[in-house]
Order: sequence, then C-alpha cells, then structure tokens
Amino acid sequence: MHKTRLEAFSDGVIAIIITIMVLELKVPHGDSFAALRPLLPVVLSYVLSFVYVGIYWNNHHHLLTGVTRISGGVLWANLHLLFWLSMTPVATGWMGENHFAPATLALYGVVLLMSALAFSILQNRLLAVNGRNSTLGQALGHDWKGKVSPLLYCVGIGSSFFNTWVSGACYVLVALLWLAPDPRIERALAATKPAEAEA
Amino acid sequence: MHKTRLEAFSDGVIAIIITIMVLELKVPHGDSFAALRPLLPVVLSYVLSFVYVGIYWNNHHHLLTGVTRISGGVLWANLHLLFWLSMTPVATGWMGENHFAPATLALYGVVLLMSALAFSILQNRLLAVNGRNSTLGQALGHDWKGKVSPLLYCVGIGSSFFNTWVSGACYVLVALLWLAPDPRIERALAATKPAEAEA
Amino acid sequence: MHKTRLEAFSDGVIAIIITIMVLELKVPHGDSFAALRPLLPVVLSYVLSFVYVGIYWNNHHHLLTGVTRISGGVLWANLHLLFWLSMTPVATGWMGENHFAPATLALYGVVLLMSALAFSILQNRLLAVNGRNSTLGQALGHDWKGKVSPLLYCVGIGSSFFNTWVSGACYVLVALLWLAPDPRIERALAATKPAEAEA
Amino acid sequence: MHKTRLEAFSDGVIAIIITIMVLELKVPHGDSFAALRPLLPVVLSYVLSFVYVGIYWNNHHHLLTGVTRISGGVLWANLHLLFWLSMTPVATGWMGENHFAPATLALYGVVLLMSALAFSILQNRLLAVNGRNSTLGQALGHDWKGKVSPLLYCVGIGSSFFNTWVSGACYVLVALLWLAPDPRIERALAATKPAEAEA
Repeated sequence: MHKTRLEAFSDGVIAIIITIMVLELKVPHGDSFAALRPLLPVVLSYVLSFVYVGIYWNNHHHLLTGVTRISGGVLWANLHLLFWLSMTPVATGWMGENHFAPATLALYGVVLLMSALAFSILQNRLLAVNGRNSTLGQALGHDWKGKVSPLLYCVGIGSSFFNTWVSGACYVLVALLWLAPDPRIERALAATKPAEAEA
Repeated sequence: MHKTRLEAFSDGVIAIIITIMVLELKVPHGDSFAALRPLLPVVLSYVLSFVYVGIYWNNHHHLLTGVTRISGGVLWANLHLLFWLSMTPVATGWMGENHFAPATLALYGVVLLMSALAFSILQNRLLAVNGRNSTLGQALGHDWKGKVSPLLYCVGIGSSFFNTWVSGACYVLVALLWLAPDPRIERALAATKPAEAEA
Repeated sequence: MHKTRLEAFSDGVIAIIITIMVLELKVPHGDSFAALRPLLPVVLSYVLSFVYVGIYWNNHHHLLTGVTRISGGVLWANLHLLFWLSMTPVATGWMGENHFAPATLALYGVVLLMSALAFSILQNRLLAVNGRNSTLGQALGHDWKGKVSPLLYCVGIGSSFFNTWVSGACYVLVALLWLAPDPRIERALAATKPAEAEA
Repeated sequence: MHKTRLEAFSDGVIAIIITIMVLELKVPHGDSFAALRPLLPVVLSYVLSFVYVGIYWNNHHHLLTGVTRISGGVLWANLHLLFWLSMTPVATGWMGENHFAPATLALYGVVLLMSALAFSILQNRLLAVNGRNSTLGQALGHDWKGKVSPLLYCVGIGSSFFNTWVSGACYVLVALLWLAPDPRIERALAATKPAEAEA
C-alpha cells in the first residue's frame, strides 16, 4: 500500500513536470513559419529536458520495482528528488529563451547535478531499508552510469563559462548514456514472467 | 507491475495534455457575448484537439489491454508518443489564434502525423515483445484506419498551402473515422465477462 | 481493467480541472490586504466551481461503483462529460473577473447545463450496457436531483439578463442540493462491509 | 474501491498543487546570474510551501492507511482540505513576490491554519466512521504536533504585523516539527511486514 501510493504520487508529479514544460512553448505571434524560428532553441531545450525527465521516470520505475520496504526517510528522499526535478521546467525555459547563454547552461547543469544527487540519496535510503542483499541491491550492481553522470555534469557546469558547446555536449552525452538500452535491465525485464508482468 | 505504472504515467500525461489546452482559452476581456466572438476559432481548434487526444487515449487503452510483456524499448516508444502528443496544445493554440492560417494548419498536421507514426512505432515494439500470435497481435488485425490516417494527414499538410478548407476537412475526417464505433473493439469489449471488467 | 483506467483517467482530468482554476487567481499586485479586495469575486466564483467540480467527482465516483461493463460509447460519453467540465475554469474566470455580469452568468449556466446533460448521457449509456436491473440501475432510483438541476440551470440562464442575484441564487441552490448528504448514498456506503471498502 | 479512488484523486490534486507552484517561478529576463537575484525570495517561499504540501501528502497517506470505512462526509471533508491546500500556490506567490511583507505573511499563515483545521476535520470524520478503537484511532495517539501547530500558526499570523522574522520563524518551526522523523510512524512502518508493503 505504502509503495503503491509513493509510486502513484511520483508518477503524478513527474507527469506534470514533463507536460508543464510545454507551457514554456508560448504560442508564437504571427502566422508564418518564420514566426516559429525564435521557438527553435526553446524546442531544443525542451526535447533535452523531456528526455531527462523521461530517464528519471524510467529509473525511478526500475528502482522501486525491487523494493519491498518503505520508511519515513524514503518518503522525504523521494520528495527531495521531486523538488529538484520540478526545477527543470524553469531552468529549461531560461536556457532556451536565452539561446544557451553561459549562466543558463551552468544553472541547468546544477539542476541536473542536484537531481542526480537526490536520486543517489533515495537509492541509498532504499538500500538501507531493504538491505544490500535484496533484489534491489543485486539489481543495482556496479552502477557506473550513476557515478559518471555527476562528473560529466560538473564538467558541463565548469566549461559553460569557457565554451558553451562543450557544456551542452556534456549534458547531451549523459542523456545518450542513459538512453542506450541497458543489458542489465533488459535481462531483468526479459526474466519477468508474463504472468507477473500482467500484475 | 511494469505495465500498471506505464499505464498510470501515460494516463497522467494525457490527462494533463487534454486539460492544459484549456489554458489557451484565455479569459476574454469585456463582459458581453461579443467578447466571446474572438474565442470561437480557438474553441473550435480546442474541440478538434480534445477529440484527437481522446482518440489517442482510447487507442492507447485498447493497445495495452492485450499486452503482457514490456521492454525498455517499449518505455521509450511510449515516451516518444507522449512527446508528440504534448506538442498538440501549442500547435492547437497557434492554429486557433491565427484563424487556421496555412502554416498553422500545416504544422498541426505535422504534429498529428508524428503522433500517428509514434503510435505505430509503439505498436510494433509491443508486437515484437509480445509476439504476433498474442492477444494484441490478433486484436490489431488489418488496422486499415492506422494506414489511412497518415495518408490523410499528408494530404492535409500538402493542401494547407492551396486550400485551407481541404486541409481542415482532412483532419476532421480522420477524427470522425476513429470516432465511429469500431465493431472489432465493441465485439472484444462485449466478450469481456463482467467479472473481468470489474478488474 | 477497462473500468480502472477509465476511473484513473477521469480522476486525473477532474483533479487537474479543479486545481487549474486556482491559476485564475493571479498573484495580486501590492503587498497590503487592500490588494486582495479585487480578488474577492474571483475567489467566490472559484469556491462555487470548486464545489461543483467536487460534486461531479463524487457523483462520477458513485456512478461507476455499481458498474461492471464498459463500451466504446461509454468511453466517449465520459470524454464528453470531461470536455464540458474542462470549460468550467474559463467560464469561472470570466464570471469572477467581470463581477458576475449578466452574460458571464449566462455562460456559466450554459456550461453547468451542458455538464449536467453530459452526465445524464453517460448515465444512460452505462444503464444501457449494464441493464436496468444492475446494481447501478437500482442505486439510481428516482434521481429527482438529476431532474431538478437542469431546470434550475435554465431558470438561472434566463434570469441572468433580468436579475443577476436570482441567477446566482439558482446556481448556489443546485450546489447546496447536491452537497446535502444523500440518505440513499449514505445507506449504500454504510452497507459496504469494511473488508470491501479496503479494496 | 471507494478508498482507492479517494487516495488516487487526492494524490492527483496534491501532485498538481506541488508542481503548479513552480509556475510562479517565472523564467527570469536577462541571461546572467544577476537576473536570478529577484527570484531568490520566490524560491525560498516555494521551498517552504513544497515542504508543507509534502508534509500534508505524507500525513494524508498515513491517515488513510489505517482506515477501512468511508462516508459522504469524509469525501467532502477531504475536498475541503484539498481546497485550502489549493490556496497555497497563490499565497506562496504573493508572499515571495512581495519579499515577505506583513500582510502576505499573515495571509500565508491563514492558509496554513485553515489547512490544519481542515485536516483535523477530516481526521475526526474518519474517526467517527471507523471508531476510536480502529487501527486509525490507535495510531493517532496523543497527536501533540496536531495541537501545537495551529497555536504556532496563530502566533505567526499575529506577529506578522510587528516582526516578520518571528512570523516566518513560526512557519519554519512547524515545518521542521513535522519533518523530524516520528518514532510512532517509523515503528508502525517497520512493523509492516515486507509482504504487506509490497501491496
């Protein structure tokens, strides 16, 4: 019961965050395709953030699958993650409207970094409650992506003041890392018997 | 479990998209009925998009009913569909506020076309994972609507620069095609025994 | 399964409608209580609409409890109801910002009336699919409130051009009718055994 | 069934409230960090409200866990609570944009106080329906936090006109009170057997 409502609430908040970003896509003035031109950087930043929030939803989903116990600390670690994710739309809008200016890229990276840290905290809280030998503990394994991503975010934040292209490339690279199918997870999903998947 | 959260998340995003479009209906200035006049094209475009998003919700619902297995690729194919659907409100607002100008009708058609393609990709991903002999595979059958719709969208996009009425008619026609009760689905629903429908 | 997603989607849309109305409550300019004064009619109209949408959620909830079968027509009757409910925020905002001017009260009444008709249609669709002897058919009984409400909405719409107080009183009266505890429903709820209520 | 939809609807509304507040964080004009400066009080007020709404979600969650019976009065007591929570975003935005001016702090306190009273009413309605000897009745115990909070809100409201720092400190203090892990709840959660937690 506890876990179900935690998932439902998180799904709700993440669904709203991912859709609220579209509200930054203001209806353009003018009725020609030229009127769409200024929207391009906003759309690009929206696509990137959509992918990021999608990655978090996927990972949140997988994280909670192997979990059986919840604590008050887990509830708050989860809300902490949702807080940083909820900062994504405003950081995205700022970056897109200012054509990826240095300060906006840096702030975007900070929001990504804090979300990643919040995810780690939630992961650790869940491991503490469920035990390292739980399904969750075994599923996480080495988690090299979780260790590389914060480093790349830091590079992205630092480089934003020197070369915005390097900075943007870092953020895109992390997204691609997570988008690539993860053999570990695919194996786990394939192992799920249809009957279970039907829930 | 996987499938349940996929459905819940999609329901959340689609529910938000369908309701966020109303935010484009800005409270009119002036307190007479005349003040409502400029809202008319916006309301018309809203009605069309409401029906379209409703159709996608219905079809998404039916698509996942016959499904038992989910993969990482399915999760992303689903997010890809939600991305294009989330573009509907801004395309709708642009079209309504500019009284169905050519470029706005073309963009609207592109969003519809991309949503249709995204739905096909999701369908194919699900078939690949669940097998062509699954309940899903049999339920889909010939799927002539799914094949005709993209063609009509293309006609709508192409004709928008010559005759906006033809273009609009194409989009309305596809919506009516899907609104008409589908004997295939009705039969499947009727076959559901009450006990199952109670879930 | 069908019913569960229908409920979840409707819950989502109604939850968004009820909360989106708050967005009409624009943050006032000025930091004194006097700055809140112009917000008063907006807040009043918001309270009325909050109660109305709450009534619809309650009734929707009760309506679907006794239901076991769903059809394609039910899905669309439900979307039709959600469409009219989604018009509530903009009608509410228009009424509040124009201090309950005649035309705004009339439009508000029209939205209420159409929502009531849409609810009747949904009810009839469900009765047609589930049968008059189903739990639903018996629970509905005489449904005098459902018959009196549209009449009062019509009186409200008609009187808005002569006396806005009479019009407003009609809308408040209908809300109070539905807010009053319904012995029929209370009895049905009390009869629910705890084990069932636990779901 | 009843309880499930009550929880789902409340989760939806609370998820929207907590995310809608971010919409008050308007994308800043200018692309330097200096452009972020005016956002600081808005972000601070947002953090406080995020924590408050999070506390209500947690408490709502725990309140309904021990509940087996629902009545029409409970549904309305719940909607009443959601109404006051839905006032949080506009009160937060007003407070943040006016740098915690006296009247804005007082109004914020009133919204917090009314939410707390609404929560008490919901709690009492649930106790009346489920009985003081139910799991819920035993879990609530002395509930000293529930008694101290309204007092602190009153102090906060009263002091806002003399010293805004005292007022703000009251609101922060209540949030910290509820954030601190509650041994009662932790014990209850720890007692949940994994099998049950899996739901």
